[in-house]
Amino acid sequence: MSLLVIGTVAFDAIETPFGKTDKIIGGSATYACLSASYYEQNINLVAVVGEDFPESEINKLQRHHINVEGLQIKQGEKSFFWSGKYHNDMNTRDTLVTELNVLENFDPVLPDSYQDCEYLMLGNLAPALQKLVIERLEKRPKLILMDTMNFWMDIALEELKEVIAMVDVISINDEEARQLSGEYSLVKAAKKIMAMGPKNIIIKKGEHGALLFDKEQVFFAPALPLEDVFDPTGAGDTFAGGFIGYLSKTDDASFENMKRAIVYGSAMASYCVEKFGTQKIESLSDEDLDTRIQQFIDLMQFEISL
Amino acid sequence: MSLLVIGTVAFDAIETPFGKTDKIIGGSATYACLSASYYEQNINLVAVVGEDFPESEINKLQRHHINVEGLQIKQGEKSFFWSGKYHNDMNTRDTLVTELNVLENFDPVLPDSYQDCEYLMLGNLAPALQKLVIERLEKRPKLILMDTMNFWMDIALEELKEVIAMVDVISINDEEARQLSGEYSLVKAAKKIMAMGPKNIIIKKGEHGALLFDKEQVFFAPALPLEDVFDPTGAGDTFAGGFIGYLSKTDDASFENMKRAIVYGSAMASYCVEKFGTQKIESLSDEDLDTRIQQFIDLMQFEISL
Repeated sequence: MSLLVIGTVAFDAIETPFGKTDKIIGGSATYACLSASYYEQNINLVAVVGEDFPESEINKLQRHHINVEGLQIKQGEKSFFWSGKYHNDMNTRDTLVTELNVLENFDPVLPDSYQDCEYLMLGNLAPALQKLVIERLEKRPKLILMDTMNFWMDIALEELKEVIAMVDVISINDEEARQLSGEYSLVKAAKKIMAMGPKNIIIKKGEHGALLFDKEQVFFAPALPLEDVFDPTGAGDTFAGGFIGYLSKTDDASFENMKRAIVYGSAMASYCVEKFGTQKIESLSDEDLDTRIQQFIDLMQFEISL
Repeated sequence: MSLLVIGTVAFDAIETPFGKTDKIIGGSATYACLSASYYEQNINLVAVVGEDFPESEINKLQRHHINVEGLQIKQGEKSFFWSGKYHNDMNTRDTLVTELNVLENFDPVLPDSYQDCEYLMLGNLAPALQKLVIERLEKRPKLILMDTMNFWMDIALEELKEVIAMVDVISINDEEARQLSGEYSLVKAAKKIMAMGPKNIIIKKGEHGALLFDKEQVFFAPALPLEDVFDPTGAGDTFAGGFIGYLSKTDDASFENMKRAIVYGSAMASYCVEKFGTQKIESLSDEDLDTRIQQFIDLMQFEISL
């Protein structure tokens, strides 16, 4: 199948207890596309960067079979830049700098060649832009996944709800699910959010794993217990990218297949956090993937016959 | 096989966002024995209560095939009493009252009929008492599980370490594992604690599930996502009781069987939190158990062939 990904392609500067980076490549679409590329060979990117964005990095995306026809390069402008510092527990962070730059006036243009995409991932962006992308597709994709965050719940709740009503799967973290639903219980929160439109909700719990719901069923995948989490930046985008990349490749949106997609997404995220930025997920081998999936099988599988 | 459980049998008064109880029956051994009784029919209890402890409650334990020959009843004294209030998130609580009463001079006496026990659960108690029980057994059990808490790390660390060196499996929560090991990463914490003696460590993460380690392997079981957690009191003891009850019944301490035991323990804990105190786990049917285990299978199992 073919997958369309919209999101940010950007610069990050990250500080963790393990070290500090200068400006490195980041952004929700970067992580999601790289991650999806291990499963889906037909990926179309929609994003915007400034003239400061290195061509070598764009080439890197292309080497991952990511079509960059929809990546706008704005001359005379600068790329989106985010800088953050993680606390010792790696679960919380302070944002030090956010420079929107090219994102401020981003108008997502979809090349004609993108029109037949069957799977769509709306990475974390202003809900109005996410909606625009859906509207600009002549044919509704088979499956639309949206990722969002509390920031949009705070400043653009009504627009956000409009997008939520248009998608099949929403992916948010536990605190965001609580904020959006007004329910503390994640089971109740999931039900309320699915009542807003989506058939499925994925609730990301960071180091505590992720839950997948439909109206009747629930599935849980843990995060892989690691000796060191080096840099959690992009783990959620990597997870979502692996999830939809696998769905797109297999072209099967059944709950059973989504379970597998959650495991593949978790495996990709577990690699992501092992190095700074996209470093680790840029060059994984088939063997790396199989090894990690086997670790998830060992971590989660047991035999009980009733 | 036969299982020996030492711990507290006590009164609790509990306040949660859902309601409030007067003095009800609680204690680590009460929860653990009741939970284990669904798997193991040969359970021997060692604990102490005061003359205020109702005979009807002792009869209830006996109806669960729990041998109370080792339950001392101290005339003229009062039972251990704990009172606590849970915060809205149900993950944290304030202790309002702790009256040690009979626990202050507890001398655990083991009836002769307990001497041949093959599985031993040392419920949360002063490490010196846990050690005494091991020493008073003429033959070392096949498997010793200890549960403990940060309180003993604060006031009796050296004694605690002596007991840890004597047991096969230690069960503690994530914060306690971090405190005991000085490591934030639970993988590193588990390794350090196993280096103190135990072959296995179980790290309980409350609503985020539980991890089981041996030197080479790790297994994870989530907590069942529930609409409402009514009262978390005793969930950890219930989990540990279900775990060792299942091990004792099946007499198999392999890692594969421990995985199953973790799932059975998690299932028991998920029932425990649905009502106040021991109410729910006093009268579960075989069908209840099967239904819940099936929910865990659905929650955790996926099919990927590499």
